[in-house]
Amino acid sequence: MLKVGIIGGSGLTGRELIKILLNHKGTEIAYITSRQYAGEKVYSVFPRFGGLINYSFIKPSDTVFKGVDIVFTCLPHTESMGFVKKFADRGITVIDLSADYRIKSPAAYKKWYKTKHKYPSMLKKAVYGLPEINREKIKKTKILANPGCYATSVLLGLCPVVSEMNPVDIIIDSKTGISGAGANPSAITQYINVNENIIPYNAGRRHRHIGEVEDVIKNTYKKNVEIIFTPQITSLDRGILSVIYFKMKSKVSVEKVKGIFKKFYAKEPFVRIVNSINLHHVQNTNYCDINIDGVPSKNIIMVTTAIDNLLKGASGQAVQCMNIMTGFSEKEGLK
Amino acid sequence: MLKVGIIGGSGLTGRELIKILLNHKGTEIAYITSRQYAGEKVYSVFPRFGGLINYSFIKPSDTVFKGVDIVFTCLPHTESMGFVKKFADRGITVIDLSADYRIKSPAAYKKWYKTKHKYPSMLKKAVYGLPEINREKIKKTKILANPGCYATSVLLGLCPVVSEMNPVDIIIDSKTGISGAGANPSAITQYINVNENIIPYNAGRRHRHIGEVEDVIKNTYKKNVEIIFTPQITSLDRGILSVIYFKMKSKVSVEKVKGIFKKFYAKEPFVRIVNSINLHHVQNTNYCDINIDGVPSKNIIMVTTAIDNLLKGASGQAVQCMNIMTGFSEKEGLK
Amino acid sequence: MLKVGIIGGSGLTGRELIKILLNHKGTEIAYITSRQYAGEKVYSVFPRFGGLINYSFIKPSDTVFKGVDIVFTCLPHTESMGFVKKFADRGITVIDLSADYRIKSPAAYKKWYKTKHKYPSMLKKAVYGLPEINREKIKKTKILANPGCYATSVLLGLCPVVSEMNPVDIIIDSKTGISGAGANPSAITQYINVNENIIPYNAGRRHRHIGEVEDVIKNTYKKNVEIIFTPQITSLDRGILSVIYFKMKSKVSVEKVKGIFKKFYAKEPFVRIVNSINLHHVQNTNYCDINIDGVPSKNIIMVTTAIDNLLKGASGQAVQCMNIMTGFSEKEGLK
Amino acid sequence: MLKVGIIGGSGLTGRELIKILLNHKGTEIAYITSRQYAGEKVYSVFPRFGGLINYSFIKPSDTVFKGVDIVFTCLPHTESMGFVKKFADRGITVIDLSADYRIKSPAAYKKWYKTKHKYPSMLKKAVYGLPEINREKIKKTKILANPGCYATSVLLGLCPVVSEMNPVDIIIDSKTGISGAGANPSAITQYINVNENIIPYNAGRRHRHIGEVEDVIKNTYKKNVEIIFTPQITSLDRGILSVIYFKMKSKVSVEKVKGIFKKFYAKEPFVRIVNSINLHHVQNTNYCDINIDGVPSKNIIMVTTAIDNLLKGASGQAVQCMNIMTGFSEKEGLK
Repeated sequence: MLKVGIIGGSGLTGRELIKILLNHKGTEIAYITSRQYAGEKVYSVFPRFGGLINYSFIKPSDTVFKGVDIVFTCLPHTESMGFVKKFADRGITVIDLSADYRIKSPAAYKKWYKTKHKYPSMLKKAVYGLPEINREKIKKTKILANPGCYATSVLLGLCPVVSEMNPVDIIIDSKTGISGAGANPSAITQYINVNENIIPYNAGRRHRHIGEVEDVIKNTYKKNVEIIFTPQITSLDRGILSVIYFKMKSKVSVEKVKGIFKKFYAKEPFVRIVNSINLHHVQNTNYCDINIDGVPSKNIIMVTTAIDNLLKGASGQAVQCMNIMTGFSEKEGLK
Repeated sequence: MLKVGIIGGSGLTGRELIKILLNHKGTEIAYITSRQYAGEKVYSVFPRFGGLINYSFIKPSDTVFKGVDIVFTCLPHTESMGFVKKFADRGITVIDLSADYRIKSPAAYKKWYKTKHKYPSMLKKAVYGLPEINREKIKKTKILANPGCYATSVLLGLCPVVSEMNPVDIIIDSKTGISGAGANPSAITQYINVNENIIPYNAGRRHRHIGEVEDVIKNTYKKNVEIIFTPQITSLDRGILSVIYFKMKSKVSVEKVKGIFKKFYAKEPFVRIVNSINLHHVQNTNYCDINIDGVPSKNIIMVTTAIDNLLKGASGQAVQCMNIMTGFSEKEGLK
Repeated sequence: MLKVGIIGGSGLTGRELIKILLNHKGTEIAYITSRQYAGEKVYSVFPRFGGLINYSFIKPSDTVFKGVDIVFTCLPHTESMGFVKKFADRGITVIDLSADYRIKSPAAYKKWYKTKHKYPSMLKKAVYGLPEINREKIKKTKILANPGCYATSVLLGLCPVVSEMNPVDIIIDSKTGISGAGANPSAITQYINVNENIIPYNAGRRHRHIGEVEDVIKNTYKKNVEIIFTPQITSLDRGILSVIYFKMKSKVSVEKVKGIFKKFYAKEPFVRIVNSINLHHVQNTNYCDINIDGVPSKNIIMVTTAIDNLLKGASGQAVQCMNIMTGFSEKEGLK
Repeated sequence: MLKVGIIGGSGLTGRELIKILLNHKGTEIAYITSRQYAGEKVYSVFPRFGGLINYSFIKPSDTVFKGVDIVFTCLPHTESMGFVKKFADRGITVIDLSADYRIKSPAAYKKWYKTKHKYPSMLKKAVYGLPEINREKIKKTKILANPGCYATSVLLGLCPVVSEMNPVDIIIDSKTGISGAGANPSAITQYINVNENIIPYNAGRRHRHIGEVEDVIKNTYKKNVEIIFTPQITSLDRGILSVIYFKMKSKVSVEKVKGIFKKFYAKEPFVRIVNSINLHHVQNTNYCDINIDGVPSKNIIMVTTAIDNLLKGASGQAVQCMNIMTGFSEKEGLK
């Protein structure tokens, strides 16, 4: 049994992670830390787990290094980097759900997160945990940077294209459920604000995940792309639906693009090329559904992706990576 | 034109009040105060009013006493009582949307609001603003205590009964939209908590509106009733649906009770006795819909009421009372 | 591996049943019938199962009797009884999710379902599948009548009381998600009707599950109770929250009642006695959460139960019963 | 008082139209027809109007031509054209909420609506009722073709651009509430389908409103544009938010485009150029909010528009046009 620690486990990604690991036949949760709820029973914060687990959250300072094989860090950006280092220094495998090790370029990290990275040399060791493009590297790393939710929904739609074609004018119109904003109450996350609403924000080139997407594409395909990205909060809990529009310099058929996707994802356990798409098909699953459409007369292709932001966009993908890193079946705990 | 001031107008009841008064042909808003947003345009806080009003919130301390005929106080409980007194002392008509002047008994006020009332002598001057039972008194008062939202939904279902019958074992199962909790963000009011949920709270004899309901019934009908009350948050913005169950000592027909209601509300502009009931029929209106049903074999009657908590349960009722107090048609601004 | 057939598997209970059985380590789905979708891939109707199952719905007439160990019938009331008989006659274990074998009294069945039962002698053989009261009988039967959703939420709150006390004036105020109305489109099930609404219906003694609840209590505890029941549609997908109010002839403490519940459910894997309750804690689980509260001064107790109507209220309970009937761990597939 | 007839008034646009006209000081509803509900009280279909109107729906064949000054036709596409002709032939002003008179080209009408237009000569007489571009023509016509909901949200964002610039690669990503699909129950409009979902459909160049938008732009600005349009159902009742992306051949500043919009809409009573946008600001109003943003480095501009699909996208716009046609203040009934 793999002993797993969860650092910062009282948020939404923590909750989903616990849910998955309870069904995973090869892991055992060693401890879950929470600054806010240390000393309280996990089920008092997440009553859904009543009858399933009986231990309490511990303080982050009580984190035990011995006796734990793998650690998931579910901490805010900029706070996570230090914890990751501590575990990595002791040879413990870390899967970091924050953004701190996703971007390889320290300059780009600083640009998007307004903070200088303290451990730039570690950035190279960390592997970006998108199995569909990095599976072999994921197998070998001990530091995994788990992708962001929007970034996952964008990259899974964009990578096959960028790998085989030269798209221009990439425009991404994304809609997310409010759980993407986390568990901390704010005016924005209130029911009376989100309910029956659609709220665009940070449109153009303002959202941080742009940095992540472009850095990954550059590192993977040696191409500089500049995306336009319109994130929008919609009145639902979970799910991201991204419509990716791009133009080709010359005529391209939808069938050809569909063929590229089918080949790219032929052996992937969690990507489905589908003819119709909506969030119900992927919510509470680790799947990414992808639909390809287009207007050939205008050389424009639309790739639509749908994921559950808390699973394939966070904790599900983290466990998928853990399975790859530790030799479990990739689907273990995620069926 | 009646000059109207709104004290504490940046919350949900303030927003609804502004919306109504903009359509009221006999009033003009003189000023709106807000501690939080003083100096900011009203439409920057409520963009819905863009193009309709161009002035800014002012500080409460900038409140002008001269040149204002009537003031609505939309302040938190215990904070409101002082403001009400200041205006009343200057002979300005006050409609108080807080709970501070609803309960006539200082002891009961202290019991439910954990604060000693500073102006107990003023409690007698204030009239409880439920037009259906207090219209004549409302016409004559200059201090109006606007009823609470749950209390309105309960009293409109209970008063006809208590006035003519002797019900026992009164049990009230109420469901509210989350706007009843106001505009301040909290863990409870978050979308991820309210969405797809039903949340009972303060069941039994714990909710403050019990004090209000029983005090009003005692003062109006000289009867001591003790209600059991289960408030529940449901996944919607606005509306309260209350099912009021009570038992009679002897057999009673549903038709007889229905007759009592029809007579009691025969001339009321905002009460409808209906055969089917749901929140859509009353949302965004000042109506209270009432359905009467029962199980005669068990001597049990069910009275179900539906209101919009922000209108008949707050700002709509406040304007209805203002219309009565100032001689306007009772429906003005509320159609 | 147990070979399982699903008759009428294209509705909501069918969908949930498939989801559970895919995670159940001891079963294999032999076939799924659907009149409406025969010949179509299961994943074309439920795209969520894309990548997980590749077979198609078959016609009910193609139902194979050989080679199947157990059959779930997910058919409309009155249509199910014949199918159940066919399988039972061939010695195949049947779990019937319709209402056809729940009520033991043919007269009561006729009263509530407006149809004469064709196989009254079989009613006695069928066991009512509420494990918390009938586990030993469930172990021995080959015909299981799976309880109704409301009935489950009511009986789990009422059985401990009725078994130990003599409650009077039992009033049940239930709120359900709209999935309880099934997958067939109607004016009532439309988004524009359900969204932001609460809709009471069939209040008093009109809902069919009253017959089921009272029949079970009579058969189990030899007591005649007459409940008052107010079902209400609320704006959510899944979940039932029932507040059960009852009166005692003499004083009773909340703690005493809580003690009765704790004892009654001490060893139950899917019942939790909780201090706070809401639907999020039970949605997508097979749990029933129960909270006990009361107003001792009035001899009134409130028992609140919460379940997922499609799981503990339908397919989850059906699999729990299957596990009991076939010797699996009761929690298999339901964690 | 203007006598108004409503043909086909039992749908959602009928309901909104009645609501507006009840508040309009210069109109009186002469009759409302409904095939489905003829003979039934209007308030039995729309209980919201209980206490406000007491008459019944009449059969379409009972339509009175005398004594009615203006008629709103709220009928399905292809069925409306005949009714419009009948009224127009008798000199009665008609405001048609269907699509039958929107497209001037009979060939385009046939292409998009799969039906040959029976009265092509009347198409020229009908004026497309978007006041912001056609006010002077609206003043003079007696046949008004009320714009479609998506088309309104797109044209209000596109017309200022097309009138002053030469945009290319116009991509429109629109999200609508489900009320756009009308009041007839279907699998798509069910709560269990719409709730917590986003559903793209007819993406590319498949949606009928493309024909309407391009025809209007051609007729108004003598320009042939070809838009790419992705409509999406989101989990809400009402509102359309459209993000319109387009590219310029050379550099363009956001401020310059914003200036074009401010000038274009300088005197418009129902268009607001805003810095932040969401559906709450426009729901239940006749406003269109427009936000302009862009990525100058890529010569791409984003124009986002928000409307209430049932008001500015249907019945509100119809009354705005009626006000223009009959000399009322343009805002009458729409404040």
